[in-house]
Amino acid sequence: MLNFDFHIPTRICFGKDSHKEIGSLLAPYAKKVLLHYSGDRIKKNGLYDTVVQSLKENGIEFAELGGVVPNPRLSLVYEGIRLCKDQDIDLILAVGGGSVIDSAKAIAIGVCYEGDVWDVYEQGKAITAALPVATILTIPAAGSESSNSTVITNEEKQMKLGYGSDLVRPVLSVMNPEFFFTLPKNQIANGVADMMSHIFERYFTNTLNTDLTDGLCETTLKSIMRHALLVSENPRNYDAWCQVGLGGTIAHNDLLGLGRRQDWACHGMEHELSAIYDVAHGAGLAVLTPAWMKYVYKTNINMFVQFAVNVMGVEGSFRDPDSIVLEGINRLSQFFVKMGLPTTLEELGIDSTNLELMAKKSTGEAYGEEHPLGGLKKLYWQDVLEIYKMASKS
Amino acid sequence: MLNFDFHIPTRICFGKDSHKEIGSLLAPYAKKVLLHYSGDRIKKNGLYDTVVQSLKENGIEFAELGGVVPNPRLSLVYEGIRLCKDQDIDLILAVGGGSVIDSAKAIAIGVCYEGDVWDVYEQGKAITAALPVATILTIPAAGSESSNSTVITNEEKQMKLGYGSDLVRPVLSVMNPEFFFTLPKNQIANGVADMMSHIFERYFTNTLNTDLTDGLCETTLKSIMRHALLVSENPRNYDAWCQVGLGGTIAHNDLLGLGRRQDWACHGMEHELSAIYDVAHGAGLAVLTPAWMKYVYKTNINMFVQFAVNVMGVEGSFRDPDSIVLEGINRLSQFFVKMGLPTTLEELGIDSTNLELMAKKSTGEAYGEEHPLGGLKKLYWQDVLEIYKMASKS
Repeated sequence: MLNFDFHIPTRICFGKDSHKEIGSLLAPYAKKVLLHYSGDRIKKNGLYDTVVQSLKENGIEFAELGGVVPNPRLSLVYEGIRLCKDQDIDLILAVGGGSVIDSAKAIAIGVCYEGDVWDVYEQGKAITAALPVATILTIPAAGSESSNSTVITNEEKQMKLGYGSDLVRPVLSVMNPEFFFTLPKNQIANGVADMMSHIFERYFTNTLNTDLTDGLCETTLKSIMRHALLVSENPRNYDAWCQVGLGGTIAHNDLLGLGRRQDWACHGMEHELSAIYDVAHGAGLAVLTPAWMKYVYKTNINMFVQFAVNVMGVEGSFRDPDSIVLEGINRLSQFFVKMGLPTTLEELGIDSTNLELMAKKSTGEAYGEEHPLGGLKKLYWQDVLEIYKMASKS
Repeated sequence: MLNFDFHIPTRICFGKDSHKEIGSLLAPYAKKVLLHYSGDRIKKNGLYDTVVQSLKENGIEFAELGGVVPNPRLSLVYEGIRLCKDQDIDLILAVGGGSVIDSAKAIAIGVCYEGDVWDVYEQGKAITAALPVATILTIPAAGSESSNSTVITNEEKQMKLGYGSDLVRPVLSVMNPEFFFTLPKNQIANGVADMMSHIFERYFTNTLNTDLTDGLCETTLKSIMRHALLVSENPRNYDAWCQVGLGGTIAHNDLLGLGRRQDWACHGMEHELSAIYDVAHGAGLAVLTPAWMKYVYKTNINMFVQFAVNVMGVEGSFRDPDSIVLEGINRLSQFFVKMGLPTTLEELGIDSTNLELMAKKSTGEAYGEEHPLGGLKKLYWQDVLEIYKMASKS
């Protein structure tokens, strides 16, 4: 196991009616907040009204900025930064899913950053401060409600880039699984694929002696998968949502990655799909992950045997480990299909036109740099291109 | 699953050499610290010198107070409070195991509390402030390095009482498993029994729909047990200590108890043993836990079948659940024996003299109150007496 430095200060308030206390929960942190959200869903389901009322009852002023879209845009982030500066906002309350929260984090950085906030993402500039962010989660998926990361899409440059800093971990996140009841089936599936990928990125490692976090990864994956099928079938299953929702948070607060060299190749490859084709992040991950597994598994076949046996429940002769691994990958693909997720780039509407460009962008090659993807197996642009091709058709 | 409010702000710095940075780690928090410890062990192994040097290099002044004993005493807590007030201490650095950390937390409370700090423990008085506490953990066991709890023994009153408040969660805990290499075998065993009990107290519940945290409990228990046997055999096994050490922290930071009604009967019953007989907490728990399981399992036999199968690996006919459960308990006892732990009160030097008194103290009966122990099955003093008797002899 590797050394680590672990700190998740985010307070999680979880359960029925938890959102009703948002005003009193925020009172110690803020006098004036930016209420940041996506569209009409929170106005239709009453969440918007409840939040506004609770803020008012607790003497918290607010400005608001809606309009966040999946793969949240830099242009709206700029608008948020201006608004926060003009209105002396001291906390951003993101009410929504990962896109809203990531957008809020970008605004939080930008308000305290002297230059162009995009430089922070593109050049990995260090930041020294950020406005505090709080969240009310309405879509369990990205884990952004307690993670230190934010991903923003620069629509002009067709670039989707992530940034991480403990300064953007939310101070407080409220999760009432009842707000997941009205999610459409494809959004449920995309979210589940995203949270599973957050675990895969940490789980698949060459680091040895990681038994405890291996087990935490495996049990969280299994619980998410079991309950994902239940909520997909009946989105009003509160108890199943509890497991999926909490699982999505644990999947990305980095507990499961402690002391492990992590991978993150699939996320790197997927961001290129989303940047050009604006596909849902989870759908892209569902397509790429099995292809990535097939391409890399021989690098560390024991790790993949463990996955197939402990997570996917494969039984068989250990003297034929390839069969065990391939059956494990097959079962994962079958699970994605059951969830209604796509299995090929073709289904996502992505043909061969930009595969090489995306492969070169994902590894820096397109910018005259070389930063291969992947902690388990280093992937250069030629490798990524091969994986894209494997994922193209069934 | 129940609603919950979860907040573990403790930063964990883990691994080889992590203790060497203690001065720079503490610099943002403190100008003058109280260095609180037990005895000579940290002076012999060089930890004391390294800490002192690092504090000096970072311009942090310090006072010191050694002499903490297992089942830490109120008298030393009073001394620490006086010292902190006299010397304008602004953080307490506990270097040691759970006893030192619990003593530091009591001092931290007492410095900011107007009245007698014992009232906080005995009368459960609310506190509004506490000095920050940081730790360098030298014995993985109590989980106090990231928990919100502290247990103190009032030697005059022969009372051992716990108190919990998020105000006493350490701000920072450093864990270098190399410092566990010189632990004597019985201390290793006691520590392992304590951390396992912290999981049992959360795991055994009547709350339904807790699949995710069930799994987290089970995998953490199994990892601790596997690696406990390795470190018991070879206390210099760094990699095994990593699993046990991190396991002990997770066991008690309350992640594993999220959304579950918890039990805590075994801790309640054990505190009475320690208060009168000054036995090691872990040894007392190892004796009482199997007896408790046998006494209560029929209340929720499915929960205990799950334990036997998922944690203890029992196979057999589910049409005879009693046999499965009893075999699970039997295997747990065998594990404790392998670790060199006692299995009866007799082995702890405890005869029948005070059993009824302890049963009545543990449930409040001795003080004219009635607060039965246990979340899974309510235990009145007669029940506790029965469990003590079952645990008396093999």
